[in-house]
Amino acid sequence: MSIRVGIIGATGYTALETFRLINRHPQATVTVATSRSEAGQSIAQVHPILSGLTSLNVTNYDAATIAKECDVAMCCLPHGASAETVRELIGSGVRVIDFSADFRLSDVSVYTHHYGVEHPWPERVGNTVYGLPEWYASQIADADLVANPGCYPQSAIIPLGPLLAEGLIDPTDIIIDSKSGVSGAGRTAKVTSLYCETNESISAYAVGNHRHQPEIADLLNRFSGVPASIIFTPHLTPMDRGILSTIYVRPRNATPKSVMETWQKFYHDSPFIHAVEHLPATKHVANTNHVQMTVRSSGDRLVLVCAIDNLIKGASGAAVQNMNVMFKLDQRLGLL
Amino acid sequence: MSIRVGIIGATGYTALETFRLINRHPQATVTVATSRSEAGQSIAQVHPILSGLTSLNVTNYDAATIAKECDVAMCCLPHGASAETVRELIGSGVRVIDFSADFRLSDVSVYTHHYGVEHPWPERVGNTVYGLPEWYASQIADADLVANPGCYPQSAIIPLGPLLAEGLIDPTDIIIDSKSGVSGAGRTAKVTSLYCETNESISAYAVGNHRHQPEIADLLNRFSGVPASIIFTPHLTPMDRGILSTIYVRPRNATPKSVMETWQKFYHDSPFIHAVEHLPATKHVANTNHVQMTVRSSGDRLVLVCAIDNLIKGASGAAVQNMNVMFKLDQRLGLL
Amino acid sequence: MSIRVGIIGATGYTALETFRLINRHPQATVTVATSRSEAGQSIAQVHPILSGLTSLNVTNYDAATIAKECDVAMCCLPHGASAETVRELIGSGVRVIDFSADFRLSDVSVYTHHYGVEHPWPERVGNTVYGLPEWYASQIADADLVANPGCYPQSAIIPLGPLLAEGLIDPTDIIIDSKSGVSGAGRTAKVTSLYCETNESISAYAVGNHRHQPEIADLLNRFSGVPASIIFTPHLTPMDRGILSTIYVRPRNATPKSVMETWQKFYHDSPFIHAVEHLPATKHVANTNHVQMTVRSSGDRLVLVCAIDNLIKGASGAAVQNMNVMFKLDQRLGLL
Amino acid sequence: MSIRVGIIGATGYTALETFRLINRHPQATVTVATSRSEAGQSIAQVHPILSGLTSLNVTNYDAATIAKECDVAMCCLPHGASAETVRELIGSGVRVIDFSADFRLSDVSVYTHHYGVEHPWPERVGNTVYGLPEWYASQIADADLVANPGCYPQSAIIPLGPLLAEGLIDPTDIIIDSKSGVSGAGRTAKVTSLYCETNESISAYAVGNHRHQPEIADLLNRFSGVPASIIFTPHLTPMDRGILSTIYVRPRNATPKSVMETWQKFYHDSPFIHAVEHLPATKHVANTNHVQMTVRSSGDRLVLVCAIDNLIKGASGAAVQNMNVMFKLDQRLGLL
Repeated sequence: MSIRVGIIGATGYTALETFRLINRHPQATVTVATSRSEAGQSIAQVHPILSGLTSLNVTNYDAATIAKECDVAMCCLPHGASAETVRELIGSGVRVIDFSADFRLSDVSVYTHHYGVEHPWPERVGNTVYGLPEWYASQIADADLVANPGCYPQSAIIPLGPLLAEGLIDPTDIIIDSKSGVSGAGRTAKVTSLYCETNESISAYAVGNHRHQPEIADLLNRFSGVPASIIFTPHLTPMDRGILSTIYVRPRNATPKSVMETWQKFYHDSPFIHAVEHLPATKHVANTNHVQMTVRSSGDRLVLVCAIDNLIKGASGAAVQNMNVMFKLDQRLGLL
Repeated sequence: MSIRVGIIGATGYTALETFRLINRHPQATVTVATSRSEAGQSIAQVHPILSGLTSLNVTNYDAATIAKECDVAMCCLPHGASAETVRELIGSGVRVIDFSADFRLSDVSVYTHHYGVEHPWPERVGNTVYGLPEWYASQIADADLVANPGCYPQSAIIPLGPLLAEGLIDPTDIIIDSKSGVSGAGRTAKVTSLYCETNESISAYAVGNHRHQPEIADLLNRFSGVPASIIFTPHLTPMDRGILSTIYVRPRNATPKSVMETWQKFYHDSPFIHAVEHLPATKHVANTNHVQMTVRSSGDRLVLVCAIDNLIKGASGAAVQNMNVMFKLDQRLGLL
Repeated sequence: MSIRVGIIGATGYTALETFRLINRHPQATVTVATSRSEAGQSIAQVHPILSGLTSLNVTNYDAATIAKECDVAMCCLPHGASAETVRELIGSGVRVIDFSADFRLSDVSVYTHHYGVEHPWPERVGNTVYGLPEWYASQIADADLVANPGCYPQSAIIPLGPLLAEGLIDPTDIIIDSKSGVSGAGRTAKVTSLYCETNESISAYAVGNHRHQPEIADLLNRFSGVPASIIFTPHLTPMDRGILSTIYVRPRNATPKSVMETWQKFYHDSPFIHAVEHLPATKHVANTNHVQMTVRSSGDRLVLVCAIDNLIKGASGAAVQNMNVMFKLDQRLGLL
Repeated sequence: MSIRVGIIGATGYTALETFRLINRHPQATVTVATSRSEAGQSIAQVHPILSGLTSLNVTNYDAATIAKECDVAMCCLPHGASAETVRELIGSGVRVIDFSADFRLSDVSVYTHHYGVEHPWPERVGNTVYGLPEWYASQIADADLVANPGCYPQSAIIPLGPLLAEGLIDPTDIIIDSKSGVSGAGRTAKVTSLYCETNESISAYAVGNHRHQPEIADLLNRFSGVPASIIFTPHLTPMDRGILSTIYVRPRNATPKSVMETWQKFYHDSPFIHAVEHLPATKHVANTNHVQMTVRSSGDRLVLVCAIDNLIKGASGAAVQNMNVMFKLDQRLGLL
């Protein structure tokens, strides 16, 4: 058996990365790739990195075709546009993994406030599983729709979730200082993403108002039952890929040792989560679905450091992992 | 008149940068450059970037020669070794700007604790001016010895100092998350500084125990009279140069507006300090002596963001600025 | 006296670089900066790197204003558009340094063929001085219009010119393999210039048909009197700035020694041209107006290696050097 | 069945890369990893990227242990040292893939001349198969010892070999201008490999005397039967990995079309060799075992452009491909 995968919105970096992962997957094949702007070309013309690896052509999106040729659709469209398409695909009987933020939050009013658009399918907000198999595998297994997680959120909630649930840290004083590679900005032609603007430079952006702030808070609350409040600052870092989150928390009778033990216990059966002794660098997880995290003491705080690849564990790898769970396969298939 | 400058320890990046700045300075000339390991070569062989710009040769260090041929010595040696040499040079009547940490702290016991060596000249610790002309110009003007500031400390104390002095922020809850280019690690051959180890990767290091933590706290206390306690986390960032410090503080009736006004008032006559509206990137100050900083609100915190070039304002530019003050010149000479 | 400089087309990288150089120049000031797209903003809003260094505002282009407020205009417009503006400015009595390719070639039909547009002012093609002060200083001194050289061409013709003129190499077998930083592609928002497309990657482009090929051949022929034929291959290299040209030539009784001597003799009075013993890296000349070049023997060929900064000697530094010559100043002013 | 693999000299980049590839290989396992300097540590301590992926410890090299626990040894030692170890391993009955240059050349005197050492096992020089499965698969299949190819050579001989064999190009006028990422310099702590020395800079090195020049010529001669003479210039490029070779040849009645057809015919059954229409960038093959190459016309020359990943196809991927051939597996296993 081979899972037939459709990629909707095939021109971006997460679509390319998904294609590469599926290409290596022993039980999945990309059967359809769609793009409004590039239809008619081969996928290898759009992404020369795929030359010689596939003869697939990019087509225009058509729900009926997807329904016929795919067991699952990876929807790589922008927010808003994505929800429209997702509704149609679900209506056509296709299971969907949605890369956008459209179905991640619990509360549609929070979505409207932060994304500035009316939600095209509000009924599915708040009752769609968040695609973090380390927390929600059983719900993902049976889901028709999975909200693939945001990149920054994963680097924060994976280390924070169990500590909050166990009451090891103060939920009202959490500072998340995150550093992301430039691929997080997508493949859109804009001056701020040019090589000469971002190379040899680091900067903070969206301080105090990034859309991943409510996603992080929402998931922490949902998972731990504790109303956490967080400060989140993203930074643009001169590298292709990777997120490092440095997280400052106030311990409640917790020590680095008890934090490590909590992580090791909670993530014991999660093949991609690694509590490590060394201070992780993004390079340690680049091009993999792995997460490395550790903890140090500094003054009256504990400092958590977590590294992921924003394109793999932060997007396409998580999607493949979700797909594996949805189709009752070993989570690791295609992700070694 | 031309100030005759000696560079002691001429092989490193700060020495090279000092050489380049003095080369552009209308009233200063490098007359002596010393290095134990490279004596006998031309300075242009050691630093090919200087080819055609100078015929100076590297010599062995000799205090008597420095005393005869230099008005001021820039001492670019490692801590411990530097203090020995500084003592000898001061004894020979040469004014010295010391790049090491040997004379920066107020308390010799803090030095011994953090640097792990006995101080070779403890009598000068605690009564040597800290080379931040924005705070201490009048003392620098008459000093025989100036302790050139550390790179990370400047990116933190320049924004924090006036806010603490004015009581705008809580001195007990300050988190400094700093990101530095790789040149901060020096020009020593070690695996951790190799291109392929640091490129395309960001990582935290020395979490909770970096030597610049006590320097930052000491200077903040000394300047503001308030006993500040800080959390400091440095990060290695894949770029040659630059430091971005993202600083989380709790306001005391302060707003972004009052912070900006405090800075603008305090640094009104400082030609290199710029409170800006935009979020500064390290690229905005790369290869300059300028400092760009701003402030944002995020949850219950204010977030201060400050960018400097670690090799210029963070080291060699600060030294030239100090030299200008010591010789009663316009601070900006050679630094435009 | 201070030369009043106008910058036409102020949003790009060469405009920014020109601004920075003039800012450091002791006898020149930017008095006008124009841009259709950014008029009304301050120049520091367009280029945050200039924050605190100038209060100049960007205005709409107006020839009469330029004529009144500027002694010289630096025209940083694209080809075609530039020639139109240059004609108007010259007509208004302003001396012009044109960064475009519009007046570099000897033959307007070659221009039309390679640039694919009718030339707006063909009468000035073939009788405008090429702005290489190392070759044409006396003509530049009196010129109303100077065609500022292309970046790749300078890295090739500076080493090749004297060797061809002296008959040291075969003019029919010259291969120029050039590697440029990404800033050569300009500040236009396009996918191919995005960080994630060019970072960690090197590629050849425009093989066999780059527009600088005829410029190189034209200048070599014009200067040496020998009809040279060249092969030119540019490469996009993952760095902000710099060009390295590796040039393969067949010697005619020439040796590395005679090549070095020819260069040293010819460029004896050129403060920016350095024939060096080491193999130059682009880093050796980054952020400077200097040229480093050397020669090696390899099989039956000589290999010439030449490094420049594409934005400085390759564009804005050359322009300032030309301005210095036009106004009878020391060539080095503002360029140390 | 799982092939048991030993890695001799486990601390470098090619050893790490081999480990990662074998980790993903469905029919191979690393059973032994040796290193004199790091014995006693876990392999994950030496390479933090392997944290959580293996519990293997690094041991001291011992031929008897390798013989007992491994079906094949990947020898990642430096030249000279490698040949000694290889002889012992072969003597112990272990099949060996040798990453060094010790058994690549046809003539031991060429080896001695270029590597400056006496060869420890001269009897095996000239009768060891060169590990390019695209040319020598049947000999590799039965070999006890395979000389894994050099990185630069593969990027040159794969495109050139068939063209020489078919008489399409002049064998006496071949210029190979190659650009390599920094990992080619290995993981040794030396100043020239520091981040701040190589970042943002490109330079030529070893012009006219690089050790891969004779390897390229030897293989071209051996394969095509034509005595080729080549000019080879390597460049250090600011990126982790990748080689781009730009090759200038004189056609003999060849056109870009006939070159493409020759390649497509010759490499029809080679899953990793791709003659492509676009100009390949190293990013198109990064982290893969694929080769992309194309051809353009430029003046009287043809320009061949070939891109590989120097650590994968240029070293560890080639080794795994060779291993697959030696054990009669699909060449692609572990390399998708």
